[in-house]
Amino acid sequence: MTETVTRSTRSRVLLNSDMGEGVGLHEFGNDVELMRLIDVANVACGYHAGDPDVMNRTVGLAAEHGVAVGAHPGLPDPVGFGRRRMALQPEEVESIILYQVGALTAFLAKHGLELNHIKPHGALYGMLAGDEELMAAAASTAKQFGVPFYGLAGTQHEAVCRDLGVEFVPELYVDLNYGPEGQLLIQRRPEPTDPASAAERVRRAVAGQPVLAVDGTELDITFASICVHSDAPNSVAVASAVRDVLTDR
Amino acid sequence: MTETVTRSTRSRVLLNSDMGEGVGLHEFGNDVELMRLIDVANVACGYHAGDPDVMNRTVGLAAEHGVAVGAHPGLPDPVGFGRRRMALQPEEVESIILYQVGALTAFLAKHGLELNHIKPHGALYGMLAGDEELMAAAASTAKQFGVPFYGLAGTQHEAVCRDLGVEFVPELYVDLNYGPEGQLLIQRRPEPTDPASAAERVRRAVAGQPVLAVDGTELDITFASICVHSDAPNSVAVASAVRDVLTDR
Amino acid sequence: MTETVTRSTRSRVLLNSDMGEGVGLHEFGNDVELMRLIDVANVACGYHAGDPDVMNRTVGLAAEHGVAVGAHPGLPDPVGFGRRRMALQPEEVESIILYQVGALTAFLAKHGLELNHIKPHGALYGMLAGDEELMAAAASTAKQFGVPFYGLAGTQHEAVCRDLGVEFVPELYVDLNYGPEGQLLIQRRPEPTDPASAAERVRRAVAGQPVLAVDGTELDITFASICVHSDAPNSVAVASAVRDVLTDR
Amino acid sequence: MTETVTRSTRSRVLLNSDMGEGVGLHEFGNDVELMRLIDVANVACGYHAGDPDVMNRTVGLAAEHGVAVGAHPGLPDPVGFGRRRMALQPEEVESIILYQVGALTAFLAKHGLELNHIKPHGALYGMLAGDEELMAAAASTAKQFGVPFYGLAGTQHEAVCRDLGVEFVPELYVDLNYGPEGQLLIQRRPEPTDPASAAERVRRAVAGQPVLAVDGTELDITFASICVHSDAPNSVAVASAVRDVLTDR
Repeated sequence: MTETVTRSTRSRVLLNSDMGEGVGLHEFGNDVELMRLIDVANVACGYHAGDPDVMNRTVGLAAEHGVAVGAHPGLPDPVGFGRRRMALQPEEVESIILYQVGALTAFLAKHGLELNHIKPHGALYGMLAGDEELMAAAASTAKQFGVPFYGLAGTQHEAVCRDLGVEFVPELYVDLNYGPEGQLLIQRRPEPTDPASAAERVRRAVAGQPVLAVDGTELDITFASICVHSDAPNSVAVASAVRDVLTDR
Repeated sequence: MTETVTRSTRSRVLLNSDMGEGVGLHEFGNDVELMRLIDVANVACGYHAGDPDVMNRTVGLAAEHGVAVGAHPGLPDPVGFGRRRMALQPEEVESIILYQVGALTAFLAKHGLELNHIKPHGALYGMLAGDEELMAAAASTAKQFGVPFYGLAGTQHEAVCRDLGVEFVPELYVDLNYGPEGQLLIQRRPEPTDPASAAERVRRAVAGQPVLAVDGTELDITFASICVHSDAPNSVAVASAVRDVLTDR
Repeated sequence: MTETVTRSTRSRVLLNSDMGEGVGLHEFGNDVELMRLIDVANVACGYHAGDPDVMNRTVGLAAEHGVAVGAHPGLPDPVGFGRRRMALQPEEVESIILYQVGALTAFLAKHGLELNHIKPHGALYGMLAGDEELMAAAASTAKQFGVPFYGLAGTQHEAVCRDLGVEFVPELYVDLNYGPEGQLLIQRRPEPTDPASAAERVRRAVAGQPVLAVDGTELDITFASICVHSDAPNSVAVASAVRDVLTDR
Repeated sequence: MTETVTRSTRSRVLLNSDMGEGVGLHEFGNDVELMRLIDVANVACGYHAGDPDVMNRTVGLAAEHGVAVGAHPGLPDPVGFGRRRMALQPEEVESIILYQVGALTAFLAKHGLELNHIKPHGALYGMLAGDEELMAAAASTAKQFGVPFYGLAGTQHEAVCRDLGVEFVPELYVDLNYGPEGQLLIQRRPEPTDPASAAERVRRAVAGQPVLAVDGTELDITFASICVHSDAPNSVAVASAVRDVLTDR
């Protein structure tokens, strides 16, 4: 486990969450309550979710709570919530990330914040994990903005960032299952996670013990930040349980 | 007529044009040819037209030709090409402009350019000209980015910029008709302009003579930049004729 | 209460509600519970809200409950939830309504239902109420489909339908305030309505007594159907209270 | 040549073309000229391209020329023009096709036409060719509307239609290359086709001679309709050359 890598310094292992995923009148997630519990917000940028007013409010809320803000760019698929893979070319991946991250920086500047990192959303996250060329396109955007890239250790996320000299922040997920190869099993619709199980996973992981895959395989997950999704029904309870573990250390 | 106000210095009166208004396979306008004739490009930002790849190519093309690039944000209405008024609140106007301008700045940084100005598109341009509150929201974005606002002298564009301390660059249009009150008569679909008439309008205007409204009324138009639309069938001929007038001065 | 499920008979006062206004993972309203209480569902058609899968599920749910289904077409503005007026031409109004209603009919046919009526949504509803030419375009679509148009008595909704021979079903609203001229005061974000007040308004209205405007003006509202919005926090309680009044008659 | 305009009779080889792929001010293809040369138009339905007004005009134009109209539904990806594969579930494929075909039927009814067939566009066409489950979802929509499905012989298009009892119309392409396995090599951006080569391919094909793949492999393509794309620069010349071959038979 590496030392703290982001600008936020509440604790060594930082808690991050995807935020600002409402659109217009459609609210989503528990941003207001979660913002009190997390260190880092990954803010949706209008493609898979979010809209300019939601982005403005979400960044403002993060600023109030001293939460660092990174960009959470997704695929141009609001109906699929960015969770359906699309066959994009590398230059398209670069362009849609530049577009979304650039858009977010305008709201960051308005609220006196700087961009903390880039973390891709949903299917884009998975596409980049498995494709060196696409990931190189994504990493170039983190390099341009001079920020770290959040992703999954042991995937192209990590390999390409290392090759291109982009700071990499590996994540541990507490509300998604891992497959036996350490891959994330992403669902289209979120299901509730048992807060005690999430806390237990974190307790083991920060103690250097293996994380269990869905089939019981022991996984050695490298991480510097822990992600709690905001859209699960009980995400506040999960985040709170994880926060307690991190605070007690 | 005020002195040159933008960063581009090819001549005292600068020629600007709306660019990058294609979407995907749908090409639009004569950007490649016009880029050789203009000083300043107003680049569409993905709302009324444009997409991340088009923005990338358009900014790259401008950089090659030494053309200054401003943002050309529009209403979220691609089918209407941003030419249908929408009842937006001031905070929505601010947010959609921040979003689009921020998105553009990522492509500018990639190509080594800085944001030159903000010029709203179509119906948004007209809405801001007539509404002090909406214009105040728009002007605040120019202030945040520290760039001038392009607009129409004698309207809220000018009044609000003056009040809020935002640099204002008034435009002369050569391919739109003016009404008797000096208002622009914007069409949903562009029609060809006679290059000789456009050149004559510019010749008179730079000589300090009145511009004629569609009914013959003599208008005294204050301007520091001249706009040629890129989407008229003969826009290259029009831009070329206007360029000749400006070069001969 | 079970009769009248395919075509409203106009002899009874039917309860209608806007349904299917979720998008992708973004749920909205209380469709499942409300479907048990209403006679008629106005199903969103993908412009202001809804998507093909939501439409399919919503129409299927209505079919299960014997609820008649009409189209609820809106403006092409998902971020604004169709509640921001747009300056459309009559032919555009006709085309966007034809498009959305046609799309809905495919799901109706799949579930063995027929189109019951057309009721425009949000800002489009208001635009049509006040503009004879736009309303003529909208009424022509009801005529083409051979169904009634739901709207507000005493407005262009009624006048144009009468002129063009389109059956008109006037509505009473129980969760929106009326202005002194009988105009609906539509909010961008819904607020809770007191179920007892809603029931009282219905009780008075069905007894032929005047409805009170927000300033106390007594309004004589002609109606054959009562609308309960599905997106208010307590819409189920409101619908239930209104349902009780109608059942007790 | 004038017969067979409402339903293709399959005894003759009909010329079909994708039409109505403009969006708003963005025109696309040579619809006006091609409509004189073709038998069958596949009209875009607003997802990959097209909008309600374009659909209305295109269907009206087809009606004027006695051209039969089928639906040309695509993926919800206007920027990618429906040419980027998306990971959709079967029920999503069914819903997006129902939505788009239903929308088109409203314009057909307005102009006195009936739906002639369904032909998926771009990446959706390719996805269905190779996936039995997705194709079953698509075929169910053709079955619901009681129309034939246009596709590629020897793929799941044909196999699933046969299994589900949906009439299948196999196509020959004259402006796309075939791979050695008979697969279509679809490009993101169209390139011009030599009209003489297109005519020669048709001459051979209608004479029962093999079509040549890009590597010279002789392919035996079963077909009942010939597709000419409308978006190639010289599509009118290609269609005209093909038309001549068919007329001379």
